[in-house]
Parts: sequence; C-alpha cells; structure tokens
Amino acid sequence: MAQKPSIPKGTRDFSSAEVAKRDYIINSIKSNFKRFGFQPIETPSFEKSSTLLGKYGEEGDRLIFKILNSGDFLKKANDEDLSNKNSAKISASIAEKALKYDLTVPFARYVVQHQHELVFPFKRYQVQPVWRADRPQKGRFREFVQCDADVIGSDSLWQEVDFIQLYDQVFNGLKLEGVTIKLNNRKILSGFAEVIGEQDKLIDFTVALDKLDKIGEQGVKDEMLEKGISAEALQKIQPIFSFSGSFNEKIKQLKSILSSSEIGLKGIEELEFLNDALSNYQFQSSQLDLDVTLARGLNYYTGAIFEIAAPSQVKLGSIGGGGRYDDLTGIFGLKNMSGVGISFGLDRIYLVLEELDLFPETLKNTTDLLCLNFGYEESKYMMLAINKLRSAGVNVELYPDQAKFKKQMQYAEKRQINHVLIAGESEMAEDKFSLKNLVTGEQTNYTLDQLVQIFTS
Amino acid sequence: MAQKPSIPKGTRDFSSAEVAKRDYIINSIKSNFKRFGFQPIETPSFEKSSTLLGKYGEEGDRLIFKILNSGDFLKKANDEDLSNKNSAKISASIAEKALKYDLTVPFARYVVQHQHELVFPFKRYQVQPVWRADRPQKGRFREFVQCDADVIGSDSLWQEVDFIQLYDQVFNGLKLEGVTIKLNNRKILSGFAEVIGEQDKLIDFTVALDKLDKIGEQGVKDEMLEKGISAEALQKIQPIFSFSGSFNEKIKQLKSILSSSEIGLKGIEELEFLNDALSNYQFQSSQLDLDVTLARGLNYYTGAIFEIAAPSQVKLGSIGGGGRYDDLTGIFGLKNMSGVGISFGLDRIYLVLEELDLFPETLKNTTDLLCLNFGYEESKYMMLAINKLRSAGVNVELYPDQAKFKKQMQYAEKRQINHVLIAGESEMAEDKFSLKNLVTGEQTNYTLDQLVQIFTS
Repeated sequence: MAQKPSIPKGTRDFSSAEVAKRDYIINSIKSNFKRFGFQPIETPSFEKSSTLLGKYGEEGDRLIFKILNSGDFLKKANDEDLSNKNSAKISASIAEKALKYDLTVPFARYVVQHQHELVFPFKRYQVQPVWRADRPQKGRFREFVQCDADVIGSDSLWQEVDFIQLYDQVFNGLKLEGVTIKLNNRKILSGFAEVIGEQDKLIDFTVALDKLDKIGEQGVKDEMLEKGISAEALQKIQPIFSFSGSFNEKIKQLKSILSSSEIGLKGIEELEFLNDALSNYQFQSSQLDLDVTLARGLNYYTGAIFEIAAPSQVKLGSIGGGGRYDDLTGIFGLKNMSGVGISFGLDRIYLVLEELDLFPETLKNTTDLLCLNFGYEESKYMMLAINKLRSAGVNVELYPDQAKFKKQMQYAEKRQINHVLIAGESEMAEDKFSLKNLVTGEQTNYTLDQLVQIFTS
Repeated sequence: MAQKPSIPKGTRDFSSAEVAKRDYIINSIKSNFKRFGFQPIETPSFEKSSTLLGKYGEEGDRLIFKILNSGDFLKKANDEDLSNKNSAKISASIAEKALKYDLTVPFARYVVQHQHELVFPFKRYQVQPVWRADRPQKGRFREFVQCDADVIGSDSLWQEVDFIQLYDQVFNGLKLEGVTIKLNNRKILSGFAEVIGEQDKLIDFTVALDKLDKIGEQGVKDEMLEKGISAEALQKIQPIFSFSGSFNEKIKQLKSILSSSEIGLKGIEELEFLNDALSNYQFQSSQLDLDVTLARGLNYYTGAIFEIAAPSQVKLGSIGGGGRYDDLTGIFGLKNMSGVGISFGLDRIYLVLEELDLFPETLKNTTDLLCLNFGYEESKYMMLAINKLRSAGVNVELYPDQAKFKKQMQYAEKRQINHVLIAGESEMAEDKFSLKNLVTGEQTNYTLDQLVQIFTS
C-alpha cells in the first residue's frame, strides 16, 4: 500500500511563493551584511556531540537533535546504560554527532579551529538552518534559519554603532517602518545591582526586571522581594520603573541613580559614545530607544544589549537581538576574544511583512512570458524567440504540450504569468510573434527584435 | 580543559572565499533554472524515516543518517531487539526521523502531499543539502548540496529539449567550455536487448555496457558472456562497440541495428525529435553526443538519459546527469505522472572551475573600501562618507580600532580590499577624503560627492 505522505512535526515544506518571500528577506539581510563588510562562512549541519553538549544548559542539551551512529551502533553502546534503559546516558555512546542548535557555538568552534587562517577583527555572517527538539507551536519550529553577523577580536564600540545602523538599513531595505531598536548595557544592570547592594542577586534582579512589560511594576517588585531583595533597595532604583524621555534625558537620570557605581558609570559612558557617534546618522525605518529593563540571556552579554521590537501595530515579540560578549571562544581554548553580534529572526520578520502586506507584488511574477504550444512546427519557430529572450535575461517557458488554448491560458493564469506569446501560421508567415498582455488584454504582433526590446527595457 | 575543536569526518567548514565560489556556481545554476521557468521549493532537512527507507535499496538504507528520538527514546524501543543488540532493527523504534538522502524522494513526497495546490506540469528546482553516511573520500562528502530541476506531469519531449539547452546555458554562464552532454534513451537499450533476444537480461546487459569506457570492448563482452548472453547475440550488436560519426550518422546505424525492435525504433524517434528540435540552437559551451552505452541507474529511467562529462583535460567523472522517469510519485500513491529532471554536481563543478582557473577574480574583492581609523573625531567624520557610500550600494567598513597605520593597511591587504580611505586633520579641514588605490598606489583627495561617483560609476 502506498504511504500517505507527511512530514515530521515542527518542520515545513516551502512552496515557490514562500521561498520567494523568504529569499527576499534573506537577500536583503545578506546584501546589508556585505555592505557593512561582513563575509559569509558556513559550518556543517551537524557537529560532534561533544562540541555542542554542555553549551546551552541542561534544557538545551535535551533539545539538541542527536544523530544515530552508522552501522552497528549498539556494539559501542554502554552495556549498563543499555540494560538500565537509561536514554539520557546511552545517547553519548550511540550518537556522536548532533544537529546544530544555533550558529553561535559552531562559530566559536570555527574561529578557534581556523584562528591561524583568519584575519582579525574577523567579521563574519552566517545564514543557515538550525534544529531544536522544542515543542512546536505557532511561530516556533524544529528547523529554522538563523541570520547572524558577528565581529570577533576587537572591543571597539564603533562596531555597536555599525550594528545599530545595520538594523536600520535592513528594515529600511524591507520597507518596514516603525521598528524600535532597544538598547541597554549589561554594565547598567550591574550598576543597579551594585547601587542597591545586591551584586550577588544580579541574575534574580535582572530576570525580574526583564518582565516589566509582561507583569508590570508591582509584579516585578513582588518577584524581587520574594528573591530577597529589600524594599529599601527597591526604593533606590524606583525611577527605573517609570523611565521615560529622550535618550539624553534618560542618560541624565541614569547618572543620578548610578552616581556611586563605577561599573554603572562605565555603562553610561558606553551608551553616550553610541548616542554621540550616531548623532549624524539619519534613522530611516527605526528609532533607537534606551530600555534599561532589557536583559536577554544576561549570563552571556557583557556590554551592549540589543533587542528589536516589531512595529507596535503587529502583536509579536522581538524580531532580532544581540549584544557584546567577552569570552565566546574560551570554551574552545581561545581566551580574551571580545565579540559583538546581532541576529535577525527570519520567521518573525516574515510574519510581520505578511501582516503589513509589505512583500513586493513582483515576487509573484516569476516567469515573464509563457509561449503557447500549437504543435511541433509552431513550437520550433517559438524556440527562436525563447532562446533569444532567455539570452537577454528574460524568464521564458514553452507550454510543453499541444493542449487546448484554454488549458494553456489557465496555466498562465494560475502561475501568475502576465504575458503569453502566440505564433500560428499567420505570425510565422509574417516572421512575427503575437504578444498578449494578460493584465490589460492587449494583443500586438512584434518582430523578434521588438520583443527583446519590450522585455529588456 | 578546553576541547580541541574539530568537525565530524566527511563534513566541511566553508571559508568566505569558498562560500563566494560556491555561491557563484549556485547563483548561475539558479538564475538559469528561473530563466527556463522553474520555481524553487524547499523541503525539510529530515523526513519521517518511513518516507525514506526502502526507496534506495539496502545499501541506501544503510547510508541514511537516522535521528535519535527525543526524550526517553528507549522506552519505545523494542525489548527483544534491544537485548539481542540488533542495531539494524532497533533503529526503527528509536529513530523515527532521518536526514534526507537525496532531493528526489522528498520531491515525490512533496508532489503527492501538495498535489491539489500545485499547477501541472509542475516545474520545480531545489538546491539543498543532502546527507549520506558514505565512507568519505576525495570529492565525496557526508553532507553535500544537490541542485535539481524537474518537470512532472507531462511527457512532452520539449522538456528534454529545454534541459539540454539549460545545461549548455549554465556552463556558458560559468564560462566552462568543452563540456559534453551525453544523450541516450532507455528505449534504445531495451531495443538492443530485444534484438539479441535477451530482454530478461536487460539489466546485466546494460550494467556491462555502461563499463565500456573503463574496461574496454573485450571486458564488456567477457562480462556479458559470463552473464549468459550468447556470442551470437553479441555479434548482432557488434557495431555499438565502435559507434562513431555525427549524430545523424549514429542514428542511421541505430536504425539498421534496431530495425526489428519496436521499442528500439521508438527510442530512435525520440532521439530524432530532440536532434531536429535543437537544429536551430547554437550550442555555446558544450556539445551534444549520442552515447548508446550510457545507462545510469537504468531501473529508474524510462526515456531520455543524460550525463555531463567535464572537459577532457580535467580528469573527473560526470558533473551532472538526469533523465526521464515514468512513475516517481507512484511510491506515495500518485500514479501515472511522467517526469524528467536533471542534476548538477556542485562539488565536481567547483573542482573543474578551480582546476581551469575559471572563478572570476572579482569574487575575492568583497569589501570595496576600508576606512582607516585615526581616532574618535576622525572616525565620526569618516562615518559621513561611510553612510553615504553604503546607501549608494558600496561595501564599506571602518577599521574598528585606532591601531597603527601599518596594522590597518595590513588588514586591508589580507582582506584583499583594494581601496582605503584616509581622513586626518588636513582632509577634515578641506571637507575632503583621501582615497588610496592599493593596486596602483595612487592617492587623491576627493569630496564626498566625487567619492560616491567613483564607486558607483
């Protein structure tokens, strides 16, 4: 019996229309990456399990897809784990490869492995799929493409300046207006913890603060109190719950709150650098917003933290993020390489462009011209036009069968091809081709040279 | 201890230079696919194991990478297989997903699953990685990209005409001359078997004949005799061992050999159709060659068979292939869909272009201009130029650190950036920028508008 075909949950087939839209976003991101001096690299879809495991926490390890060893894999399996049916342990001996979980750890591995071939500061971008055994849900998939750009090997803040502009340029290229580039700095968060005398509770403090959007001021305070942060401490940072005003006004408030914290003041200095360095830059599609509650995987970031919010009329989480980290390659033995990077959320951006109807209409018209098939001699004559038009860069196809006129026209319509070319006895006698515009209904006879001109001008 | 990083055998990291070269080939193939009316689709990296297993023979099943089920996979495992340590059987219950082995079976699955959304004849292309647990060796990898185009749902020979032209156009685009497009037809091979009265030995016959290049006439005959084909039978097809002349001369000989075979004559008719339909086409980079010994996975093809040979000065096997098949989607329950398709061997084409030094020099120059960093004020001034040039489509980067002049120049050199922009006190006073061409050594001061003109004209 034939199988009823389907695909694994959390994975997707992409139709031609979907590929065209995805490529439109990806190409816009890639061309901006290049414009800012980033170069592409690619790493394998799977890494050695030992490269990935232990890098994403316990939860991450569980979500990594492991690849079964080839051949007689049970021969190498640990007997005790096997008889205990210990799934968690046995996979170490029967699955020595794993699909990559993100682009960051493989990138760190790449930099360390190829450090002697690379030119530092090393600016790379990477647009590749990653895999996570997450529970699939709306907008969350088991296979999805990540779009990352990072610079490694320099702690210059000019890179943060570049990344902020890069975000703006990408969204500008996609004609997506109303994006907010939220900016914070880990040192500001450390400063808050220092000021309230709770440096040891930095993580609890920021995890709670990060939820301000969702649970509100009282929710955050309740959580902080619960974690043992005193009411008196909270009083000291009360202003950050109602932080508002321009970038400069916010900086002024921060200077007052953090006046006693060395690290906090360093964070302010970095924010001021970015603000001043960007003072000549005209933001086009987005606005920069200083958001002192922004934390994003705090353990990871050491300086700037970015998060991109979709235009407010679209109800969606962040469509990108990133920040400065100081020791990414340390896990593979290369110390003291400061890095900073950003990421674009392809699937989320897709949803935003779809909802706001921002995909160009022209993405639909993939084939420019369909040549109708009226028989062998007619098609052979048609091939003269087809070859010449293709050589001129026009996307052309011949309907393969001598089907009824109506059927061929329906094919053009369904495929959203806007022009058909017709050549029967009379056109052939005149050495011409009849071009029908399916949008306007107009039909005119042209010579081959005229046709080429029409489609290439 | 830090791990010494490496990647699984048979996989590859691609440097920026390699990605640029691979993209050059892929983009040339894709743009020609589009020019011929093919549309892209994408399928997931992994399929349900049941979709893939049993489709590639026993050897193929062994070479499919299986993905371990998530969570407590041993709970679902078959106890008997587990205690017998039967690796081959147990994988069915602990690995329900598998990485795709080629693009063809997932394509067949796609067509059947989405048949009601598709417009037939359905012309699709697909450029995606596939995975095989093959023993890695020179030019053979465990992860590699396949580039396929197929039409499904029509048996018109105009599609074969298109594919032959498509091959020529792709190699033409890559400036690769001297390629041979070998053409045969399964019906010719069936005709030979019929003429010698050995229809039941068709497979043995063609497997032996396919080796003519490698083991010579006597070797092929020895193998055929060994398989029970009579010396008398071989006498009848003696001419095919020294088949030569033009396409038409070969057709003439075939007509004589196959005069008594209905299917053989049908094959000749199809070959003649292609030859006549192509008579107005000017081959540019390749030549068409009728090769009656060409078989390629005979079980699969039912009509035309293509194979692409690299230019003879490069010692490499085929760099592409394809053919007509009649029941690809039958395995998933959709009968009577004739299809025809071709494939390009990306890795092999890469080796050929590398060996013949055919990659464009310009692939190396990815960033157009490096702006030197002489300090904060200078860099802020430089950003005016950087923003304007990027908006004009120029790839520009600022050296992030205020490093020594020599170090910044070395960075430009190593990155193969041909121009640097310099702005110190004197340039700033004049509202100009000093552009140094690292190839010619020339250095001139320009206004910002002049700079934009230089890089965009």
